[in-house]
Amino acid sequence: MKKFINDPQQFVPEMLKGIALANPDTLRYVPEYNLIHRADSPRPDKVTIIQGSGSGHEPAHVMTVGKGMLDGACPGDVFAAPPMDYVYATTKLLASPKGVLLLVNNYTGDRMAFDMAQEMSEADGVTVRTLFIDDDVSVKDSTYTVGRRGVAGNFFVMKAVGAAAEDGADLDELVRIGEKVNSVTRTMGIALTACTPPSKGSPLFDLADDEIEIGVGIHGEPGRERAKWSPANDLVEVLLDAIVPDLPFAPGDRVALMINGLGGTPISELYLLYGIAHEKLEARGITVGRNYVGEYCTSLDMAGASLTLVKLDDEIEALLAAPAEVAIRVF
Amino acid sequence: MKKFINDPQQFVPEMLKGIALANPDTLRYVPEYNLIHRADSPRPDKVTIIQGSGSGHEPAHVMTVGKGMLDGACPGDVFAAPPMDYVYATTKLLASPKGVLLLVNNYTGDRMAFDMAQEMSEADGVTVRTLFIDDDVSVKDSTYTVGRRGVAGNFFVMKAVGAAAEDGADLDELVRIGEKVNSVTRTMGIALTACTPPSKGSPLFDLADDEIEIGVGIHGEPGRERAKWSPANDLVEVLLDAIVPDLPFAPGDRVALMINGLGGTPISELYLLYGIAHEKLEARGITVGRNYVGEYCTSLDMAGASLTLVKLDDEIEALLAAPAEVAIRVF
Repeated sequence: MKKFINDPQQFVPEMLKGIALANPDTLRYVPEYNLIHRADSPRPDKVTIIQGSGSGHEPAHVMTVGKGMLDGACPGDVFAAPPMDYVYATTKLLASPKGVLLLVNNYTGDRMAFDMAQEMSEADGVTVRTLFIDDDVSVKDSTYTVGRRGVAGNFFVMKAVGAAAEDGADLDELVRIGEKVNSVTRTMGIALTACTPPSKGSPLFDLADDEIEIGVGIHGEPGRERAKWSPANDLVEVLLDAIVPDLPFAPGDRVALMINGLGGTPISELYLLYGIAHEKLEARGITVGRNYVGEYCTSLDMAGASLTLVKLDDEIEALLAAPAEVAIRVF
Repeated sequence: MKKFINDPQQFVPEMLKGIALANPDTLRYVPEYNLIHRADSPRPDKVTIIQGSGSGHEPAHVMTVGKGMLDGACPGDVFAAPPMDYVYATTKLLASPKGVLLLVNNYTGDRMAFDMAQEMSEADGVTVRTLFIDDDVSVKDSTYTVGRRGVAGNFFVMKAVGAAAEDGADLDELVRIGEKVNSVTRTMGIALTACTPPSKGSPLFDLADDEIEIGVGIHGEPGRERAKWSPANDLVEVLLDAIVPDLPFAPGDRVALMINGLGGTPISELYLLYGIAHEKLEARGITVGRNYVGEYCTSLDMAGASLTLVKLDDEIEALLAAPAEVAIRVF
């Protein structure tokens, strides 16, 4: 294993320290709970939004804390749900009188941690609601999930509720918006290679030199099919054929299109995929109203990409277009 | 080779098409010359800034075209200088009465193409100046270079002259600023793996499972040393020991610190490196005034990273802090 790490056990805290050092004015780091939170959170006039998940999916979620996005993120170790007491402590520390919204990608371990933390926080008098995200069309039930998995489409739920919360929306309204965005968001991914967790030190699964995993999960879970590599045009068609009929997205629809890199794929290939997907959607009568190309939810160093569609209406489009400021920035 | 591509010969044009489709309001694509340019360029009130290089270094330079950055980028094929006639045609198309500034990373092939294009454009009456960037401290002279190589520090020259041009600076002033920034910018990189060019289909060089290349070039050129892998703390020390004495950066200095991913390294590892570098610089009495963590100048899918320091003064810091808008954006 060749990575930029010291002790694999310190991978997550050392990354979190780097994020905090790079954003001294806007973020705070609480090492006891792997917590990265906004320096100005909690605010009495704003619902607090928290997401936790396993680490290894960066920028999700520790690098999407900021104005118009998350108030805090409390990750677990690599590919491990955050401990329940991290979520509980985070919820208490960041609690606002307007309440706390917990965002949870749909994995059994995460649900358990967040459900228990919600119960304990409520017993302490904090008003808490939880939103589950399950945008992955690849499989129903999986290695770590009952129902569908939450993957890169999570970004759109975060962005929409983050924008609404900044405008003063109350907790019920945020739940309505989040459920609405999740209900019109669909994703599927393809792995070209496996990923290597620092503590394991070797690839999580085996893919032959000419093989790919269609519908891969962001923890390397199996998808729909182990297939032979094929050209990008064909792979985009496979993704659209799975995603478009699922909602369904129909001619005349206006969508947000995201090409998300899984960690080891260069941005050149992501833009190549974007061009193909854009043209294929237009050929199906679907208009791309907003686009997102880059890394939003990764799987460590996995080479691969996912494609997400969100059906837009005026409300969702305005929330996605609202300003936001997070740790990852070009300038 | 498993990449998201169709025909390797179409890799660059298909990527460029994707960039253009993703930015219909702000960018234009001229396929004949691999040219991506701002929709509002050329402008009579602003010096035109153009950079070309081989492809495979994205986001450099086709994704850094935009307000406050480049007016246009005319890349060659992967790791190949742009043909001289591309540079010539681009210079003519985007020529402003205030002149054209060409930015060139110091490689022999690129210098030749740009020198000839400058001569031909000047013969046609265009006022042209050229700036060479050579920030890589790793080696003097290399596989493709006389003198030092231009690598990720190029970003700071682009950003500074881009900001000044937006404010109306004339060509002489931009040359002064660009030379000044280049003169206080130093970079060195480390490869954990080789990269695989689409047309070759196999890794460009061999690195054993426990080997790294210290001082690697962005085309896989050899650096200072083929070494055994070591922990991130040690690798950052190696980079700082090469970079800091070179300028030299001294106690009391204020710097911009960039951790640049080479394409296949996840952002989690880049932030881990950032935290280490930040603390080691502070321990040397050097203050990190601005930070940059992410991919700025890559080498296809190479796993690796480079570290850049820029010595700041008020003028440079103000130019780096000025607003800019490019194709790569999170929202």
